[in-house]
Amino acid sequence: MVAAMPDFLSFIKPAVRRSDAYTLKHFQAEVKVNQNENPFDMPEVVKLSVMRAMERKPWSRYPAFVPEELIERLARFSAWKAQGILVGNGSNELIEAVLMVCVEPGKRVAIPQPTFTLYRLLTNILGGRCEEILLTSALVFDVPRLVEASGSVDVTILCSPNNPTGCVLSLDELRAILNAARGLVVVDEAYHEFSRQSAVPLLHEFKNLIVLRTFSKAMAMAGLRVGYLLTHPELAVEISKAKLPYNLNIFSMAAAEAALAHFDLLEPLITAIIEERQRVYKELLRIPQVRPYPSQANFIVFETEASPTAIFNALYSDGVLVRDVSRYPMLEKSLRISIGTRLENDQFLKSLKKAVAF
Amino acid sequence: MVAAMPDFLSFIKPAVRRSDAYTLKHFQAEVKVNQNENPFDMPEVVKLSVMRAMERKPWSRYPAFVPEELIERLARFSAWKAQGILVGNGSNELIEAVLMVCVEPGKRVAIPQPTFTLYRLLTNILGGRCEEILLTSALVFDVPRLVEASGSVDVTILCSPNNPTGCVLSLDELRAILNAARGLVVVDEAYHEFSRQSAVPLLHEFKNLIVLRTFSKAMAMAGLRVGYLLTHPELAVEISKAKLPYNLNIFSMAAAEAALAHFDLLEPLITAIIEERQRVYKELLRIPQVRPYPSQANFIVFETEASPTAIFNALYSDGVLVRDVSRYPMLEKSLRISIGTRLENDQFLKSLKKAVAF
Repeated sequence: MVAAMPDFLSFIKPAVRRSDAYTLKHFQAEVKVNQNENPFDMPEVVKLSVMRAMERKPWSRYPAFVPEELIERLARFSAWKAQGILVGNGSNELIEAVLMVCVEPGKRVAIPQPTFTLYRLLTNILGGRCEEILLTSALVFDVPRLVEASGSVDVTILCSPNNPTGCVLSLDELRAILNAARGLVVVDEAYHEFSRQSAVPLLHEFKNLIVLRTFSKAMAMAGLRVGYLLTHPELAVEISKAKLPYNLNIFSMAAAEAALAHFDLLEPLITAIIEERQRVYKELLRIPQVRPYPSQANFIVFETEASPTAIFNALYSDGVLVRDVSRYPMLEKSLRISIGTRLENDQFLKSLKKAVAF
Repeated sequence: MVAAMPDFLSFIKPAVRRSDAYTLKHFQAEVKVNQNENPFDMPEVVKLSVMRAMERKPWSRYPAFVPEELIERLARFSAWKAQGILVGNGSNELIEAVLMVCVEPGKRVAIPQPTFTLYRLLTNILGGRCEEILLTSALVFDVPRLVEASGSVDVTILCSPNNPTGCVLSLDELRAILNAARGLVVVDEAYHEFSRQSAVPLLHEFKNLIVLRTFSKAMAMAGLRVGYLLTHPELAVEISKAKLPYNLNIFSMAAAEAALAHFDLLEPLITAIIEERQRVYKELLRIPQVRPYPSQANFIVFETEASPTAIFNALYSDGVLVRDVSRYPMLEKSLRISIGTRLENDQFLKSLKKAVAF
């Protein structure tokens, strides 16, 4: 028997009341490979240059209304026009702004499943309806079904490389979806640096394309919350109406500028992560009762014959924190690991071998 | 003749297409009194302690999912329970989260006018309807009309002290509105430290009350974007569903904790600003053709007989940047100045005297 709902909660939309909040249980561990973070911190020289800049800046003054220098740097970095770039407090904020300007009751949003959960959560809160397109049994995008769905929905959201599976859409596949699309197509490229592929060149062909990127992964700045969006300038103006003023703080702004200026220091770390991903994948293939899926991101999903909870716990008691993704559709038997340093990956592999042999 | 709308923009909600983006033209000036910022920067000792903490922290790791230490400090600071506190990337983000969980087409939001423009902008984007309650001709809240409106709308938003006029609702007036309210009542207390009054004690009486606060004004942290929300824990759970994960970056979080720990250094600056506000108000009363309105915030609105644009330009050419608020309803003849340092205020007063005498 459920207690009567307090009166004041009746003013919350029913779709919100029904939603679960996005949560993540807090664990600490020696080897933390649960959040697709960059195992290499921002290089010291970059950190120090940002610190020095911050000592001189007043904290009591608002950031610039438009972060022109950062946007100019992003335009050069990503080869897209400054007028079509928006920056946000993480790409999450930009996903929210995109959905706010186009989703309301009656609107339909196509989303592959399993994928990053925030798309569905925000669509529900805004009163839209999600059309979920399952990945194939090989955990890759079901392109024919995505082409079909995008032809009838208002918004299609594609995370490529996909979190949590690591599959990608090729540019030809994306082009097929964009050609068929009736509405807007959002490509969340949070992990694109690890796939050496980007949808940005397609912006020249498709005015309904929105590309999202983040500084949280390859750029080693998850703690500082910086994301950006690339699209047609006319669409950027509309999306900017739902972007909060002064959304990027002065510290994160300075850090993002410095990261771009020193990208030569970050690039070798990305290469190292890609090489480690390939090594870990091959090692996982060799472990009995374990089935890894190919990934173009900085993480790998793998199935185990044992219960994922048992494996999670065994790894955790060994100091290795992975992500239990078994509550996602199609991933009932799966865990996800982020690619760490070589030492961290070895520790994970050693613990996993022990756990499955138990 | 308007050009045909490109096809892809037809997926943007009509209410968004009709809205103007929140913008602020960028000006530089020696005396910058246009954004209600704290003229005193965060004390050096606080800045340095935050810097030292940041050198040790990895930037590549996500912030804690729930910023427990900051919330505990805020609970002690504001005398409210931790489970009823949410932190955000500025209070703007929390306003957005509140409106997202309760506003959709068909919902009505009561807002005094003139007030902070973001409430109306976000309500429109979410498809809600604003019921605007004008201030009285003395530029104070029209309490009887607010009591009446709150009895029929879904959400009532009260900025007290009100931006840009500086008027406040007494606790008795707020209580009358809360008693009459059918739905939720949001009190935006961005400037409460300058009024020495807070609605927080009313949280014990009213479960439909939401109080918003910011670190951008009295706390001298506009550049770092930190806000917080205080409400009944059950309501906080619902609002948190629309709050983005990892919304507060590690630097701003550390700075907010340090500001609370060193509040004894900030408190005398608040007192100085209040004293200066009283002095500037009295000085403005003495200037012919100028009519200041009493304010409980760190800014003052004043009418002039000359055109506000002419006065704005005259002040600006003297190096004094004020805010032209003449596009707000009821403020056609008004400008707004933030309270600066004593020196800055003297420079403003001197320039204003010169401008009106011209």
